[in-house]
Amino acid sequence: METRSNFHHSLEELKAALLKMGTLVEEAIYQAVKSLAKSDLKLARQTIEQDDQIDEMMINIEAMCMRLIALQQPMASDLRIIGMAMKIVTDLERIADHAVDIAKTTIRLSGEPLVKPLIDIPKMADLAKEMLREALTSYVERNEARAEALAAKDDEVDKLYTAIFEEIVGMMGENRSANRQLTHLLMVAQYLERVADHATNIGEWVIFMISGKRQDLNI
Amino acid sequence: METRSNFHHSLEELKAALLKMGTLVEEAIYQAVKSLAKSDLKLARQTIEQDDQIDEMMINIEAMCMRLIALQQPMASDLRIIGMAMKIVTDLERIADHAVDIAKTTIRLSGEPLVKPLIDIPKMADLAKEMLREALTSYVERNEARAEALAAKDDEVDKLYTAIFEEIVGMMGENRSANRQLTHLLMVAQYLERVADHATNIGEWVIFMISGKRQDLNI
Repeated sequence: METRSNFHHSLEELKAALLKMGTLVEEAIYQAVKSLAKSDLKLARQTIEQDDQIDEMMINIEAMCMRLIALQQPMASDLRIIGMAMKIVTDLERIADHAVDIAKTTIRLSGEPLVKPLIDIPKMADLAKEMLREALTSYVERNEARAEALAAKDDEVDKLYTAIFEEIVGMMGENRSANRQLTHLLMVAQYLERVADHATNIGEWVIFMISGKRQDLNI
Repeated sequence: METRSNFHHSLEELKAALLKMGTLVEEAIYQAVKSLAKSDLKLARQTIEQDDQIDEMMINIEAMCMRLIALQQPMASDLRIIGMAMKIVTDLERIADHAVDIAKTTIRLSGEPLVKPLIDIPKMADLAKEMLREALTSYVERNEARAEALAAKDDEVDKLYTAIFEEIVGMMGENRSANRQLTHLLMVAQYLERVADHATNIGEWVIFMISGKRQDLNI
């Protein structure tokens, strides 16, 4: 049995590992959307390959959590911190999967010029990335207000998604190959909307970790 | 500290709780797709309301897992069983969320007659539900071969999804309201494809639980 101060040290390590994973995930989203906007196949493939590293980090963090719970017989509040780390890691991994989905879209559309330059999708990606960063900061700082503020940002993302949906549906017409591309772009917008949802999930875990309250940030 | 036999009993309880949640989730997918095919708003609303119960079950199962780990100081293999239960429960919850997504589509399209009767989407839903059932059976039976067999079924789902994608893109044309409906239906097909992915995830956790191997069932 380790001492309480060792346990505290292990919790700090856990936090650092989560943050490192979060930074990689943020980077993955950035790269994926950039690869799509610039039709950069090399960057798309790189984003897909890097996902293995993110999966590896998830597995390590989960093992770290289970070891901590098993070895330390933590108190209820510490147990909650560790349990939340296990939830957050799952959301991070899902966000990274969406980065892969977007990078695959780049590859799928390769060779085709984009029907129009991407403007709203990168804007949505910026917002979603910002939400992820805020969610992780709220975790590190144990800052409930910061986590709660994610709800308003999520509304912005949802509005942007609805606008993109309507715009894209409005651009569909007789040209089948354009329709296919538009549909893929719409899927990308939907992935980004999910990324924002995962960021609100993280915010919800943070609020639960601090206060024991369940709060819905995504209405 | 409880005895080993109490621990065994608790693991059985955990398994029963997971199965019960799995059955509800299966039901949710069935109801959601039925509500869409029959434009049944009442059933759609009911599916959405029942999701709270599923979320509640997830929270209870996770608490059960953390208590088990903390109280019992389990051996590595037991720790793996409990860790996998925590992963499986997350996949189940995500599947239920997709049932809600589909039920919301029913509501969104309410009043509009469907552009064509749904045939392939219910077929895809049946396959995805069957995969979920198989994944849970492989968990209960600790049956690795059964979990591995999910990969072939997932290929079928992926093929069906590609067919639906091409069919729907082929139906898009000058009619904006038809395009909007077709796009929503395509999203539903994509949700079902994700449901099948979650079933393969569960199969992967089962294989890991039994053998310690990481295997990709979704290629």
